[in-house]
Formats: sequence, structure tokens, C-alpha cells
Amino acid sequence: MPHTLAEKILQAHTADDASEPGRIVRCRVDLVLANDITAPLAIKSFRAMGAREVFDRDRVALVCDHFTPNKDIESAEQVRTVREFAQEKGVTHYYEGGDVGVEHALLPELGLVGPGDVVIGADSHTCTYGGLGAFATGMGSTDIAAAMALGETWFKVPPTIRVEMSGTLAPFVGGKDLILTVIGRIGVSGALYKALEFGGPLTSELSVEARMTMANMAIEAGGKVGLFPVDAKTLAFCRAAGRTGDTVLDADSGAAYERVLRIDATGMEPQVACPHLPENVRPVSELKALRVDQAVIGSCTNGRISDLREAAAVLKGRKVKKNLRCVVLPATPNIWRQALREGLIETFMEAGCIVGPATCGPCLGGHMGILAKGERAVATTNRNFKGRMGSLESEVYLSNPSVAAASAVAGEIIHPAAL
Amino acid sequence: MPHTLAEKILQAHTADDASEPGRIVRCRVDLVLANDITAPLAIKSFRAMGAREVFDRDRVALVCDHFTPNKDIESAEQVRTVREFAQEKGVTHYYEGGDVGVEHALLPELGLVGPGDVVIGADSHTCTYGGLGAFATGMGSTDIAAAMALGETWFKVPPTIRVEMSGTLAPFVGGKDLILTVIGRIGVSGALYKALEFGGPLTSELSVEARMTMANMAIEAGGKVGLFPVDAKTLAFCRAAGRTGDTVLDADSGAAYERVLRIDATGMEPQVACPHLPENVRPVSELKALRVDQAVIGSCTNGRISDLREAAAVLKGRKVKKNLRCVVLPATPNIWRQALREGLIETFMEAGCIVGPATCGPCLGGHMGILAKGERAVATTNRNFKGRMGSLESEVYLSNPSVAAASAVAGEIIHPAAL
Repeated sequence: MPHTLAEKILQAHTADDASEPGRIVRCRVDLVLANDITAPLAIKSFRAMGAREVFDRDRVALVCDHFTPNKDIESAEQVRTVREFAQEKGVTHYYEGGDVGVEHALLPELGLVGPGDVVIGADSHTCTYGGLGAFATGMGSTDIAAAMALGETWFKVPPTIRVEMSGTLAPFVGGKDLILTVIGRIGVSGALYKALEFGGPLTSELSVEARMTMANMAIEAGGKVGLFPVDAKTLAFCRAAGRTGDTVLDADSGAAYERVLRIDATGMEPQVACPHLPENVRPVSELKALRVDQAVIGSCTNGRISDLREAAAVLKGRKVKKNLRCVVLPATPNIWRQALREGLIETFMEAGCIVGPATCGPCLGGHMGILAKGERAVATTNRNFKGRMGSLESEVYLSNPSVAAASAVAGEIIHPAAL
Repeated sequence: MPHTLAEKILQAHTADDASEPGRIVRCRVDLVLANDITAPLAIKSFRAMGAREVFDRDRVALVCDHFTPNKDIESAEQVRTVREFAQEKGVTHYYEGGDVGVEHALLPELGLVGPGDVVIGADSHTCTYGGLGAFATGMGSTDIAAAMALGETWFKVPPTIRVEMSGTLAPFVGGKDLILTVIGRIGVSGALYKALEFGGPLTSELSVEARMTMANMAIEAGGKVGLFPVDAKTLAFCRAAGRTGDTVLDADSGAAYERVLRIDATGMEPQVACPHLPENVRPVSELKALRVDQAVIGSCTNGRISDLREAAAVLKGRKVKKNLRCVVLPATPNIWRQALREGLIETFMEAGCIVGPATCGPCLGGHMGILAKGERAVATTNRNFKGRMGSLESEVYLSNPSVAAASAVAGEIIHPAAL
């Protein structure tokens, strides 16, 4: 019987029957993740459960990326809690300070997640690793605590929505625009507890980074996971990250899908998700004279080197509009250093951007660019819920890095080609 | 009758008699400053006073540097208040976003403060400009509001403590160590409502930046101002900042001093101010095995290009200790860009530092590096009061940039030569 990617990966991690949607399966997990916000809760649960040791010191990742460098005493105390736990349990993959990057950019870079893995994290955007062909999903801190102790968890095998992508991408259009199109079509609950499985002829054209951008936002359609097939590009990415032994992986031909969504990229414009839901998606040309107070280029969605290159290409030789804050946050220290070597940091600084450290920063209203009442941001981040980036009376428009950069120059949301 | 620098500058700004300490004089001010924390209070007072316009649009500076990029909604609202006031009153020198730098590094760089000026700011470290020979001092927001409206304020002419500096500076010893020595000698109230006037044969050896570092901390001895003579170095600095018409300025020979303090730099070690007062000064070699969790290189005291060069010289080819946070905050965007061009940013990033934007950041416990309970920081900042950088149970040790950098590598407070 042919199977979807989700079914195949889960089946490879369980002694139960993962052959069809709806079944409950108990799975081994390859990596368990938490961050500076969620780990303290997970640690509390871990101790309350009477757990003594983590199941595998090399398979727990604790990444202090959200409110760091520590924004206040409370966040400093959270990091201290995580640090002390990591030391006590001998957790290998504990990251803070100059080693820390946004978790979902950092773990792929370190080769800690990859093809066919089952990864759970106490962070909703754990689904990012689906771009590498991992069944990766966010869970609450209590489930994470149990998995840290046991090395396993349970899932209900999700039904799958197949996203068939075809056509050719225009300049300034990429993975972010494709996933915003998907979310715009099916809505923020359109894939609730379902797997999104990306395929079709356009898939192989997408860079691994673009795939991670897309998988990252599967959760914005309610998806349990967002899965890409594993191809030569994926394997090359994983080898560069120091992994060995990965192999290609795809859904079986003839697998059963709950629904097939067809996306033709030809003629697609850059897309923008308007307030206050990621499903409020419109082509950028439909937005007129929307003054912008802040642009944010970064996050687990679009803070990787390809994103910075796109933004820098637009900003090169141009200036950010006076008094507009254009905050650039490379997602990891390695991305930061690469951007430095390529002259992108210089481009950002010459343009008048604010370049900050690798942190989630303002994406979740954390720090490093919070909005006041009446302010509007364009951001390469993943959520534009009411108050997400600050005041309940502020607005966030989600876009790709080129659009965010162009808008920072123009002072209003604009197509990069219109600059 | 011969006069001190303080008396001479005040006399040049008043129709009253500023010839001796204790007299009350009404003075014209050349510049009035406030920041994102203090300006909202000053603006409130300005409106409550019924003031309509600022006395001179070109002589009010509003710099949003403390909690920016906005750390939370409250700080975003503060910046919005300042921005709206600046727009409403047509204030020329309003800075936020990519233009903003730490106020006391930014204004000298922009040529807005200089020799013989009277400058008041709603920030205690306004005394920094004394390094350029300006009578510059911090005031409360209400006085600042009145001065924004009137272009004048009143002072009691301060008595002067003369600091006679001689000798030769050893490697890794500079302005920070000299001023810590002064504060250690006279205590945090030793210059209460007095002028510190720096002179002696070592003075001309000090760079203008070192002088600003020293003047900056005059307030840590309670000083009203910390004044350096204006010499060829000062004039060159001011010309480079675009100023014209400045002239040399010094105290009159034979001026009356309340006290003369003699500092011989020969044989002086790097100095460290231990918790919880800047007067608890000890030579670095006396500190043994003091584990450090965080190093901060930046602030209005030591965030200028010469400071970054010193820190980078120590960090070049070395690595920050694992899990120690070494936060580097160049004090202005221009300093940031200069550091980038000189390869200093690369040195910091290769060493594993966290490089952030131009902000006051953790110096005042604002953001970008707050300490948890039990944590210890070495910082190039200016205050180590209890809880200054975070938890009431954290500690801050003040040092020069070389010592901070060396300590970040060693993981404990150490003499750079001992690395």
C-alpha cells in the first residue's frame, strides 16, 4: 500500500501501525527541543514527573534564543534555569550567548535534524525541519518533558493535504510567497492536525532554505507538519552540516491524500499577509500607500543567508527612509559571519539598518523592535496576530525579504521592482 | 582675577557674576538634551508649563537610545511620544532607528557639542562633553523642560577640584583607569556639586576619546562637571565633526581650587571598580578567580572606536569562553561602520561575541544583556550599583575595554597581559 511522507516517517519510528490517518502510534523521537521560554516549563514538568535523567544527552537541544541577549531579569532567570538543567543533566546541545541562533535556523545548520527524523519541540515552528524531510512538530512543554525523559511520544497519524506546485517563479517571488498563497487559499485552520506535503515539478527548483521557509509556516495553516521530499539538494545541505547516512525520501506514488491543492507559480506576485491573520493574503500590488514605521528582516522563517542576500540586493546603494526602523537579525552567528564576509552587513549598515544579534527578537513581541500604538511593520516573520509585535493597536504585514527591504526604503509597502 | 575653567565658561554665558564659587547665575545654554526615558517626562512638564515652542529648533537634541530598538510596548510608546513632539516642534536633532547612537557618543560625533559650550541634558552622563571643554551637566526633566522653552537655566557656580595628572601610562591602562583612580581616591561623593578640572602634563597625552571617558564618570564622584582644557587635539576632533570657530581654552594660571588631587600614572595597573560602588576601586591584579558570566563592551563611557580597537586587539585570534556572553555594543552607527571597515566587527564575531546595535542596552539594566541572580558581569560601563544590570543579587565590575575583553576570554577577571 502506498504511503504519504508522514506515514512513512512515522512508521519507521514505531512498532505500531502507522499505515493510515487516525491511528495512534507511539514513536521514538530523534531530537527533543525547547527554548528559553518553553524549557523552564518543560523542566518543571520533568522534575514533577520524577524524571531523573534525559533519555539521551545528545538528543535534547536547549536553545536560549527568544529573549536573548537577556532582555530583563525574568528572561535572565529563565536562561539560568535552562543552563543549570543542561549542566546538571549533561545536555550536549545547550546554546546561549555567542553560540546561540534562532533554534529553527540553528539546528539544521548544526546537522541536528534531517531527512526522515522525528523531531518534537516546545515551539510551534518546529515544523521548519519538514523542509529537510523531517516529521517535525511543536508540542506543549509537558509532552516535551515526557519525551525528554523517555525518548518517545505519541501521535495520531495525520491525514495529508498534497500541495502540487508547478510553474516558474518571477523575480522577487519565492518560498514565502508560495506558502502565503497556500495559507491564503486554505485558511489558518485549513490544515488543522493534517500534514501538508509539498510536491510537484516546482519543488526541485526550490532551495532547501526556501523549503524550510515554507515548512516553517505549515503551522500557520494549522498543519501538524509541512513535509518536503528529500532530494539531492537536501542531501547536499545535510552533508554540508556534517551529517552522514541520509538518503532520498519521497511519498509513494499513489499515496492517499485527503485533498490536493494545486499552486501555479507562473505570474505570481510577491504576496503579503495583512492584519491580523496569516490567511489575509493579497498580492503586493493591491496594497496602496500603506505607510510603514518598521521593517523586520529575520526570524526562523526568513533569517537565513539567502534571505539576507535578497534583502541586501534591494538595499544595496539605497537608504532606509528617515526615522523608519529597519531591524535586521541574522538568524544564527554563522549566518551573521557569512553575511559579514559577503559584505551584506556592510550593505545593511550603509543603508541605515539596525543590525542586531541572532534572536527571535520582535517576531513574537519579545524585544528589539516592539511597536507602539498606531505603528505598522512589514516583517519577514510568520505571524501577524493582533498585538503580535507590540501594541494591540499596531499592525504587522508579513512578506518576503525583498518586499520588506523595498518597503523600508520606500516607507510604504511596495513591490521591489517598483522602487 | 584668574579663573577656573568652570567659572570662565559660565561667565561667558551669563550677565551675572560667575567669578566665584557659590554665586547663582542665569546662563544661556547652547544645547538641551533628553532621551527616550527622560524626554517624555520633560515633554509633559513642557506642556504643563504652558510652553508653546522650543527656544531654538537647532539647539534641542532628542535621542532615543536607551531602550531601543524598542524593548517593549512601554518603551515604544515613549519613543512615539518623543517623535511626535519632535515633529510638532520641528526639532532638528531628533534621532531614532538607524540614525540613533548612544547620546553622549552621538552628539560629539555630530559636532553638536564642543569647547566652551554650556550643555544640559536630562541624563546624568551629560558631563561627558567636558572632555571637549564644555560645561555639561545632567539635570532633572523639569529643569530640562524649562530650558527647552527658554534657552537658559541657572547654576550655582561650583568650586573646583583640580586633578593634576602626570607620569606615563602602561600598556592596557588608559582614561578609564585614571578616572576610576580618581573616584577611588575621593569617593562617590567626593566632588558633590563641584567641578573636576583635569590638567597636568599627562593631559595632552590623552586622546579626546579618553578625556570623554574620564569626564563621563565625573558624576560618579558626584561632580557637577568634569572639565578638560581645549587643546589642538580637541580642535582637530571638533573640526572632524564639522564644527568651525572653536578655540583653545584653559583655566587661568593661579585660579583658586578647593583642592588639588595629584595622580601619577606611572606604574598604574588597570583598575576595576568592585560591587556595589564605583569608588570600590582595586588594581586588577588584586582580584583573584572571580568567575564572570557576562562581559559588556560599550556604553557612553567606553563604546567609542578607540575602545573597540582596544577590545578587538585582545580578542583577535582568541575565543570568548563557552557560554559566557560577551556583548559588544558600538556606541553609534558611525562607530559601528568604522569598526566594520577596520575588521573589528569580524574579530568580535570570530571570537564568539554578540554584536548588537548602538544602544545603552544593559548598562542601566535596560535590555540586551540583563543579569540573573548570582551572575557576575565585567563591564566597560559606568555604574555598578546593586541591581544596576539586573538582579539585586548580581554583580557588576567596572573596567576598561582591554580588561573586559581579556576577562571574556579567561572567564574570570584578569589583566590582559596575563592572558
